[in-house]
Amino acid sequence: MVGSKSATQDVQALKVDLERIKADVLALAKIGRDPGDHGIYRMAFTEADMAGKRWLSERIEDAGLQLSVDGAANISGTLPGDDGDKPRVLIGSHIDTVPCAGALDGALGVIVGLECLRTLRASGVTPSRTLELIAFSDEEGRFGGMFGSQAICGQIHPEWIQTHVDTDGVAIADAMTACGYQPMDALDAARDPSTIDCYLELHIEQGPVLDALHRPVGIVDEITGLFTWSVSFRGEANHAGTTPMEMRNDAFMGLADFAHEIPRILAENGSERSRATVGKAQILPGAVNTVPGMVEFSLDVRDTSSMVLEELQTSFRKALSAIARRRNLIFEFEQRSYLPPVSCHQKVVAALLDGAKQLEMEPHVMCSGAAHDAQVMGTMVPTGMIFVPSKNGQSHSPAEWTAWSDIEAGANVMLKALLELSK
Amino acid sequence: MVGSKSATQDVQALKVDLERIKADVLALAKIGRDPGDHGIYRMAFTEADMAGKRWLSERIEDAGLQLSVDGAANISGTLPGDDGDKPRVLIGSHIDTVPCAGALDGALGVIVGLECLRTLRASGVTPSRTLELIAFSDEEGRFGGMFGSQAICGQIHPEWIQTHVDTDGVAIADAMTACGYQPMDALDAARDPSTIDCYLELHIEQGPVLDALHRPVGIVDEITGLFTWSVSFRGEANHAGTTPMEMRNDAFMGLADFAHEIPRILAENGSERSRATVGKAQILPGAVNTVPGMVEFSLDVRDTSSMVLEELQTSFRKALSAIARRRNLIFEFEQRSYLPPVSCHQKVVAALLDGAKQLEMEPHVMCSGAAHDAQVMGTMVPTGMIFVPSKNGQSHSPAEWTAWSDIEAGANVMLKALLELSK
Repeated sequence: MVGSKSATQDVQALKVDLERIKADVLALAKIGRDPGDHGIYRMAFTEADMAGKRWLSERIEDAGLQLSVDGAANISGTLPGDDGDKPRVLIGSHIDTVPCAGALDGALGVIVGLECLRTLRASGVTPSRTLELIAFSDEEGRFGGMFGSQAICGQIHPEWIQTHVDTDGVAIADAMTACGYQPMDALDAARDPSTIDCYLELHIEQGPVLDALHRPVGIVDEITGLFTWSVSFRGEANHAGTTPMEMRNDAFMGLADFAHEIPRILAENGSERSRATVGKAQILPGAVNTVPGMVEFSLDVRDTSSMVLEELQTSFRKALSAIARRRNLIFEFEQRSYLPPVSCHQKVVAALLDGAKQLEMEPHVMCSGAAHDAQVMGTMVPTGMIFVPSKNGQSHSPAEWTAWSDIEAGANVMLKALLELSK
Repeated sequence: MVGSKSATQDVQALKVDLERIKADVLALAKIGRDPGDHGIYRMAFTEADMAGKRWLSERIEDAGLQLSVDGAANISGTLPGDDGDKPRVLIGSHIDTVPCAGALDGALGVIVGLECLRTLRASGVTPSRTLELIAFSDEEGRFGGMFGSQAICGQIHPEWIQTHVDTDGVAIADAMTACGYQPMDALDAARDPSTIDCYLELHIEQGPVLDALHRPVGIVDEITGLFTWSVSFRGEANHAGTTPMEMRNDAFMGLADFAHEIPRILAENGSERSRATVGKAQILPGAVNTVPGMVEFSLDVRDTSSMVLEELQTSFRKALSAIARRRNLIFEFEQRSYLPPVSCHQKVVAALLDGAKQLEMEPHVMCSGAAHDAQVMGTMVPTGMIFVPSKNGQSHSPAEWTAWSDIEAGANVMLKALLELSK
């Protein structure tokens, strides 16, 4: 991997430069920031997103990496390896944001990837495999989400491009054209899986676990799958004063029963990684003096095992059915989405754990409960993720933050793993 | 009460004429009916309501009763008694409707009152007390509800008239003026309680009890009081995927817990007449993949005893507080309304029960869970109510109906009671 023994020793001592990471995070955070609410508005294919892409392109060139942009507007910075025939290692995340975002989310993973390649390039060592920093387009979902990584994995087709619109009705094709891209070029972004050895991503946890455990680094072994249901109970709307309690078909009470079954169902059929959430509910007709005749609600269930997800589906269906019978309600449910769980690759996880060990850290091995570009990339190539703590579990808000020291720790683990995996 | 022995015998045999009731119900139901949804739209001080008032005025004059209209636009038809010094007996209800109403609701009580007085007038007997049919204005609440009966009871003041508006922002003063009334004349509608002996009202039950029991007539002994609360639980909105179950402060689960406490609280602290309903709830932020951070909901609690209502207030407050502590939520509640229960007067209830007995009926003694003009009148004068069954408990919809035979039964009980009370 390296040219000489002394160079090898240098390589072992390599560390990222936190000051450069800080400067990059703070500089990128200015792009798209609203001075009013301090939130960042860098949604995909907006002017701010384009400014972010230009800023990143300049950083890539400043670092001496080879800049390229594919048909899905994914930005890459490549550090060529000694052995051009070996599949390359990808590292990255995304720089687009949700509306009113914080400074880190995907941006941190891109900046850490940049810093790793910059550190290697500056050290004068040449890895055996080519390393590629990549910033994927529209991870956050202005037009559906994971656009860039799906394009790389060949999961985008012409109809996808023709039909996806944002919440204001703007088509992705129009937004891309306005930014100077040819939308159908996104089809050309698909890569041959055999050209990629693995994909690495550092991301903020977006949950409270590492923060509560006071651990600077988490290593992801599995990314949860999920199903979401839209459920309804129909009973009878009646006058709240004239209808005795025992003569009611109160749809809302069906929902309350169901909410109470969630802990039992998870305890009986789930794993410690299972989550189930009723996040949305509408009670109809919704009058103070009317017994609810109808309730519509969402169910979001996640686990890292598809078998567990299947068992949870069965259990939740049985619970709905039993409640409906007991309360004389009619229930309906429709599965709105299903994402299979993705396991991180053993080789990549081992490299990350080993990197942490070299740095005398004890990383927390955990699952990712949120979806990331790594979930898409993991369907095609070996994938691994590092999490750094989110203060108070907060993300997607200006309150999103991670201690610089934790960022530095995560970045150094990433650098160690990258050295190992680029051999 | 009557002029001769033979007339007394005739009086005992007096019955209402169902055909006249039918004709009146069907005729009034045409006024304000929408040919599209078959619902009746005779909201207070609309053109349809005015047409209804004109129709009623004509029926009153046709029946040979003395027509009068007070400052609150209450329509009266009076049958003068032998003894002008005795306090009079009032009988009635209202002819205004909710939007998309059925044919009966208040209209039936007015028509049955009209038929009772018409029957007496036609029989040639003269009661000792003056009898007065009254149709109260805006019972249903285009401008707050119970306007006419509140005016009679002296509960309307100038500020009330100046501030009440409908949901479209139309002021009651403007609506009354447009109909040719002087709004401030409503203050003149207040009666001296000593001039009224009692108030009688027949109404559809608007609940399922009589229909389920197959009883044609219910006699109301108490009208429930109620309190309504607006309650909120505040927890923390978190990502549904990244937040482990045990690290959540799920505001919706607080509501589910509370819903489950309702049966226990009613069983422990309520009576068989207690009702408690969560009719309205808003879950925030209301996203499928977000643990609810906030929930706002309504609580409507009714009972016929103010002591029970007080105990229920204490119990519900304790439950909210315990749930908030257990789930690490913040709760707030605000009492939005309180109506004290009203007991029907023993003398009036006895006359109604006796009337039913004379007709060899076994009426069901029950409470009224809904508010009626009788609840307002009952705060000032002795009051009694008859209920007739609502098919499937339905009301405030075009599906609202009562068998003609049940209407006839209720009307004849009312006639008997009227004969007794007008002595």
